[in-house]
Amino acid sequence: MTQWVYSFGAGHNEGSAEMRNLLGGKGANLAEMASIGLPVPPGFTITTEVCTYFYDHGKQYPGELDAAVGAALARIEEAVGLKFGDTEKPLLVSVRSGARVSMPGMMDTVLNLGLNDQTVEGLAKASGDARFAWDSYRRFIQMYGSVVLDVDHHRFEEIIEDVKLDRGAAEDTALTADDWRDVAMGFKTVVADATGNPFPQDPRAQLWGAIGAVFGSWMNARANTYRRLNDIPASWGTAVNVQAMVFGNMGDDCATGVCFTRDPSTGEDIFYGEYLVNAQGEDVVAGIRTPQPMSSGRAKPGEKPMESVMPAAYQELVRVRSVLEKHYKDMQDIEFTVQQNKLYMLQTRNGKRTAAASLKIAVDMCREGLIDETEAVKRVAPGSLDQLLHPTLDPKAPRKLLSKGLPASPGAACGVVVFSSDEAEMRSQKGESVILVRIETSPEDIHGMHAARGILTTRGGMTSHAAVVARGMGRPCVAGAGGIAVDYASQALSSGGQIVRAGDTVTLDGATGEIFLGSVAMIEPQLSGDFATLMEWADKVRRMKVRANAETPLDAETAKKFGAEGIGLCRTEHMFFDPARIGAVRQMIMSETEDGRRSALAKLLPFQRDDFTELFRIMAGLPVTIRLLDPPLHEFLPHTEAEIAEVAASLGVEAAAMQRRASELSEANPMLGHRGCRLGVTYPEIYEMQARAIFEAAVAVAKETGLAPVPEIMIPLVMVKRELDITRAQVDGVAKQVFEETGTTIEYLVGTMIELPRACLTADTIAESADFFSFGTNDLTQTTFGLSRDDAGKFLPAYVEKNVLPKDPFVSIDPDGVGALMSIGAQKGRSVKPGLKLGICGEHGGDPSSISFCETVGLDYVSCSPYRVPVARLAAAQAALSGSGGVDRTA
Amino acid sequence: MTQWVYSFGAGHNEGSAEMRNLLGGKGANLAEMASIGLPVPPGFTITTEVCTYFYDHGKQYPGELDAAVGAALARIEEAVGLKFGDTEKPLLVSVRSGARVSMPGMMDTVLNLGLNDQTVEGLAKASGDARFAWDSYRRFIQMYGSVVLDVDHHRFEEIIEDVKLDRGAAEDTALTADDWRDVAMGFKTVVADATGNPFPQDPRAQLWGAIGAVFGSWMNARANTYRRLNDIPASWGTAVNVQAMVFGNMGDDCATGVCFTRDPSTGEDIFYGEYLVNAQGEDVVAGIRTPQPMSSGRAKPGEKPMESVMPAAYQELVRVRSVLEKHYKDMQDIEFTVQQNKLYMLQTRNGKRTAAASLKIAVDMCREGLIDETEAVKRVAPGSLDQLLHPTLDPKAPRKLLSKGLPASPGAACGVVVFSSDEAEMRSQKGESVILVRIETSPEDIHGMHAARGILTTRGGMTSHAAVVARGMGRPCVAGAGGIAVDYASQALSSGGQIVRAGDTVTLDGATGEIFLGSVAMIEPQLSGDFATLMEWADKVRRMKVRANAETPLDAETAKKFGAEGIGLCRTEHMFFDPARIGAVRQMIMSETEDGRRSALAKLLPFQRDDFTELFRIMAGLPVTIRLLDPPLHEFLPHTEAEIAEVAASLGVEAAAMQRRASELSEANPMLGHRGCRLGVTYPEIYEMQARAIFEAAVAVAKETGLAPVPEIMIPLVMVKRELDITRAQVDGVAKQVFEETGTTIEYLVGTMIELPRACLTADTIAESADFFSFGTNDLTQTTFGLSRDDAGKFLPAYVEKNVLPKDPFVSIDPDGVGALMSIGAQKGRSVKPGLKLGICGEHGGDPSSISFCETVGLDYVSCSPYRVPVARLAAAQAALSGSGGVDRTA
Repeated sequence: MTQWVYSFGAGHNEGSAEMRNLLGGKGANLAEMASIGLPVPPGFTITTEVCTYFYDHGKQYPGELDAAVGAALARIEEAVGLKFGDTEKPLLVSVRSGARVSMPGMMDTVLNLGLNDQTVEGLAKASGDARFAWDSYRRFIQMYGSVVLDVDHHRFEEIIEDVKLDRGAAEDTALTADDWRDVAMGFKTVVADATGNPFPQDPRAQLWGAIGAVFGSWMNARANTYRRLNDIPASWGTAVNVQAMVFGNMGDDCATGVCFTRDPSTGEDIFYGEYLVNAQGEDVVAGIRTPQPMSSGRAKPGEKPMESVMPAAYQELVRVRSVLEKHYKDMQDIEFTVQQNKLYMLQTRNGKRTAAASLKIAVDMCREGLIDETEAVKRVAPGSLDQLLHPTLDPKAPRKLLSKGLPASPGAACGVVVFSSDEAEMRSQKGESVILVRIETSPEDIHGMHAARGILTTRGGMTSHAAVVARGMGRPCVAGAGGIAVDYASQALSSGGQIVRAGDTVTLDGATGEIFLGSVAMIEPQLSGDFATLMEWADKVRRMKVRANAETPLDAETAKKFGAEGIGLCRTEHMFFDPARIGAVRQMIMSETEDGRRSALAKLLPFQRDDFTELFRIMAGLPVTIRLLDPPLHEFLPHTEAEIAEVAASLGVEAAAMQRRASELSEANPMLGHRGCRLGVTYPEIYEMQARAIFEAAVAVAKETGLAPVPEIMIPLVMVKRELDITRAQVDGVAKQVFEETGTTIEYLVGTMIELPRACLTADTIAESADFFSFGTNDLTQTTFGLSRDDAGKFLPAYVEKNVLPKDPFVSIDPDGVGALMSIGAQKGRSVKPGLKLGICGEHGGDPSSISFCETVGLDYVSCSPYRVPVARLAAAQAALSGSGGVDRTA
Repeated sequence: MTQWVYSFGAGHNEGSAEMRNLLGGKGANLAEMASIGLPVPPGFTITTEVCTYFYDHGKQYPGELDAAVGAALARIEEAVGLKFGDTEKPLLVSVRSGARVSMPGMMDTVLNLGLNDQTVEGLAKASGDARFAWDSYRRFIQMYGSVVLDVDHHRFEEIIEDVKLDRGAAEDTALTADDWRDVAMGFKTVVADATGNPFPQDPRAQLWGAIGAVFGSWMNARANTYRRLNDIPASWGTAVNVQAMVFGNMGDDCATGVCFTRDPSTGEDIFYGEYLVNAQGEDVVAGIRTPQPMSSGRAKPGEKPMESVMPAAYQELVRVRSVLEKHYKDMQDIEFTVQQNKLYMLQTRNGKRTAAASLKIAVDMCREGLIDETEAVKRVAPGSLDQLLHPTLDPKAPRKLLSKGLPASPGAACGVVVFSSDEAEMRSQKGESVILVRIETSPEDIHGMHAARGILTTRGGMTSHAAVVARGMGRPCVAGAGGIAVDYASQALSSGGQIVRAGDTVTLDGATGEIFLGSVAMIEPQLSGDFATLMEWADKVRRMKVRANAETPLDAETAKKFGAEGIGLCRTEHMFFDPARIGAVRQMIMSETEDGRRSALAKLLPFQRDDFTELFRIMAGLPVTIRLLDPPLHEFLPHTEAEIAEVAASLGVEAAAMQRRASELSEANPMLGHRGCRLGVTYPEIYEMQARAIFEAAVAVAKETGLAPVPEIMIPLVMVKRELDITRAQVDGVAKQVFEETGTTIEYLVGTMIELPRACLTADTIAESADFFSFGTNDLTQTTFGLSRDDAGKFLPAYVEKNVLPKDPFVSIDPDGVGALMSIGAQKGRSVKPGLKLGICGEHGGDPSSISFCETVGLDYVSCSPYRVPVARLAAAQAALSGSGGVDRTA
């Protein structure tokens, strides 16, 4: 028989950390903590399989569940000596959701469940604190009412405000037991009004209501959005955790707090967190009272650190922190409650962190001997390195401070202010950089935070929703900037008399919490020694080489600085647009004869030769892959009438002739038109000029530096072998000429982009004429899906919305279609030439999950934009390790 | 040791008809005829392997060849009692090329080889006819000079004209032995002048010169063009046949002729051909003298049929004809010579024929018991049926006769007159129908004949180049229209005072030989009973069903008449362009809201319903596959400013708004844009309207006729299964509604076009949601090759020219790329649903070689344009037979 319920605590632990899939992260870790002797209030977990069953059976529970829950509840009653629904000594429980991975958007927590009009009196008696009892009851009604019964939470807040006004009380603390009773009764009326039913008094009904609400929330819109953005399958389901309540709000010897075992922003090895005396968990996160620091060392004047306020509980917590890190071998995010000076652990999980923290923690823990080098390499999410490479504000740049908040997520960002997540998404889709400004964020804002360059909130602390989510996403964030007033209605914010309206530009510094008016100059990131260390460890285990896509000397230098082992894609057409050259390019296109084209190309030759000379010099003997001209010629012609007239005049042709030529060259589907090697086959003189520029440059650099470059000349868009034969013969012919002319011979390779389905399917034939293949997965994705990257924007959002395409195939390689063709291409190519060099030069070359796929296909290298090189190095290392060990992608 | 030379004749036959690949068609059949006892002058064949060796070894012959040729020549000398180069009784030989398949463009024949200034005297003595000897010598010099030594043949003709002028002779026949000697001497001077060397006197040198010329001509431009057009690999090579001369020009008891064992135009079982008394072979073909008919029954008054002129030889020939047909079981094209009343056979081969003849001969031979039904089915080239389906002139149509020639190839054609093949090709590429008018055609005209709708020559007979080639290509041809004078210089023709200039329109009737001024109305072809018989035999062996692509009632009726077993593709968008509907379509596109679109679609619904009602009624229970809307919406919007303004006014919107919408909808690559099911996913209301129209029509026709149609609803451009799930749910939902509303339920299928590489690669997943697959090979070819059909025209000619793409992949399925994806798709689809119905609905569905490929993939049906249905039925039958027996594609 399936076990649907697992108990934990009080010496009866049926679960463990390994059972995360069944028990969810929270439940598994509660059981794990209890089993290693940490103080965990007893409770039980209803498994994720119940959630699956629930959705597979029209929202019915398994028949045996009721009895199992009853038995587990009885075990809690026995352990704590209280009874659920007892009017004298009532057991209260918390009900919390808990999926495999932490997931905002779902119902989170209901505390104090079990209270009703009778048991509240029992709690008052048993605790000897009627105010506490009624405060707890009103909290329960409010929470249960809003999250389980879906009553608008503002209606509860109004009642508290009314009572406070009535009593002349400024603060909640001024309210008495009777006041809270009145509040609770008011809340019950609100619920009855809103739902048409009285607030449920039966504790068991309350419990099943809460359980049902957790399961129900698994499929709500916010949860679905979050899962989509984070690639979490709906089939995983959530667990439900029911646990005996402990109270941080029973008096001044009580407290509650949220901590990280290391600093989640920097990774520094300090105890980092916040706590509140006499409070329940949600008070810390809600940001209504200002939380206090943990350690005395971190306290500012006037603050009340836990270390000095509750020294015994604090020392116990420090011990727990050490036990947890040694046990989990990772930084933990913990929640605790102190009840009458006794510490209880309510949660532990691997803590979310910034990329910088992730890097530092991995390297530090390796040095501390907690983990080894390969484990350290696995610990850092490659994509997160991007954050470390983001620019920061130039300290010397002039700036005008608007206000200051908490440095909630590092990095600097600059953009136009928007006040809603929808607006953020809309404007960012148009290519604008936006800063999302909210009083506070909620799970409804995930898409806007994702779209924004930076996030600014005026409420909430370092563990607020905005801060946690922004760090996870790598977005700079300034939180709790209380000096700023936001007015959604007038679409403006104000601070110290300054007004900033929607559409105005501001700059955030997530590392300092500062907000500046206008845009502030930024500088390149400085990489820490830890970065170099981790990269070195990654390079030790990596099999695939990492190259960069680069045309300009700046790109090439950046790439080399980031550790690129060559250039994997130099797009020569980018060199054609230079103002000094475009005239000759256009003259070439306008020529009706081969001679005319040759004389125009002769003007381009010295430019291209200089381009290549510089690249070869910078790359100093590393391989440089140069793709010959790829785009259709009409891309180089002017488009507007004025431009056409001007260009025609400068070339000495008639505007009408140029117009005619432009329309002759225009294509219905240029993506599938006269481009790539089709140009080389029909106008051999173009590739011949390019080949000459390459060989003359290579020979010159070989003579100059003694370090001969090995050009890898790449023919684009080959669909049949004969195209490669013809263009290769052009290249070989020019090579022979140049070597004879200069008396110097250098090595070179001629290969092809594999970027059409047909090229993959006939790769065995094509390989006969190719020294290497480079998969051009941009075009291969376009043709495999029949999807134009330029046009897909019109319907792709709807497609992602409706889950038609769970991932954008231009971001991550689609393994079933594009990937299948790559596998076929690689296998067929190597069937003819076992040592055939294989690479990838599409945008996917810098995407970690695509890099992992490339490892499975057996590519020799990936090539990506210069800034992605470190990401690719780390991803390639993890891909190599996953062959033997398996990579933890949740890190 | 390789045998390079094979002897035949005089009881020593080393070859046979089966050795066509090694000996070429001519050589193999000479050996075969000799071995069944027919009178063949002895000779030998130098194999095609020598040709291959020749090109593989820098134009060197195998070392052993010289000796082998010597030995074989000695065998001929012995058999005929003459000696090669002997001054008394010289052996003369013919040298002819002979590839596997008959191939114009190559060097054809050199006769009388072995003559020189000495042996000509020996021949004069031995034959007792000096005039014959000198005539033979001058013929030899002329032929050898022009075909081996590449001397312009006009220079020889001038000499004859000069001599005739000199002697006051009107006809060649008036020239004496001495006159011919003078001509021969003049010819020698011409050759010496043109080549810088005296005409070769050594018979062995002459022989090797002729052999080299045959091998050399295998790679000349004309031969290369012909091979390209006819899919003949260059690697096949040609053989060379050397054979003892027999003379049809030794007197009035000599003759030469060319015959077909049945009428190659109609297939009628008569002895069909032409002969000339006292002539050599080339005289018949050249059209200088008018050849005479074979049988008395076919002779017109004044003609001299062979049957009465040379009764003995004729009777022998009739016997030979019967032996050959019984032996080869096919209609033969034979060449013969009568020397002093003795018949010699010089060639037999399967005769080229019109489609009508091919059909009649196959059916007749089956009835005669020569072949069986499946052999008959294999005999007719499916593509040739097209000819039978071409229109003929409407007998009631008014017409103005210009002139009359020979009915050389059946069918009627109408077009503008052009006088050169280049012009024909150029204007036809622009979409014009052209009639190619030439005095006579030559292998240089192949491309122009291919481009023309019809061919008219003023010289030459029924076996002239123009006639033979036109029949092979299925082009209507009127040959030898001597009443017409052509003046290339003034680009005009004249007949009876009428002048027709280039660009004027004429109409040809290839069945009567008539030429009309202007265009004459045509009517649909009448299909013979043989056609129905062969189709019936084909249907018996066929496995694949044949459907038609049809939208209009006319198309559907035509398709049904031609035996279509359903509609495989009804393109609903074609119905959107109707003037009565396009307004509502545009209103739909202009709507910003779903409601607006729905109200526009509501206007379209009755139109679409009527369309489908009519189709269902016509197809009477046969399956009808309806593809939901496929093209991008902007295709329906007006394009020019004037149109936009007009349409905007009629819709009551501003022109600017319409312009804006048009530019919003415009796409960089519409082929890969917002089209196909992407429309259905983003605008569900469109497919819902179409589904409603289909189901309402189906229900109505079911009620009306009692014969419920089974609509097969096809979703286009699916790249992931979920697209099909979403659109299928739309269709199923509408079906349920309509069935409830009408109280009638009908069967229907929902399937998908498989037209993207990704769909093929993930066909197993997609099959889960599909009732059928239809391969859309047009789009699949575009995406697999990355080749836009609309744009490829700019470089595809260069690609075919350079042999980059030997075949246009839009005409015949590319088996290595597109075909490989089809195989993957079929196999994966059936791995999930073994009974999954598979079809094809691209243009390839009517192409015989593609149909053959479809058989290997295991498709259930092909679908093609209505006129191609008979072609597809026959091709499908041959494809089914080729699985067991093998199809002779040379028929």
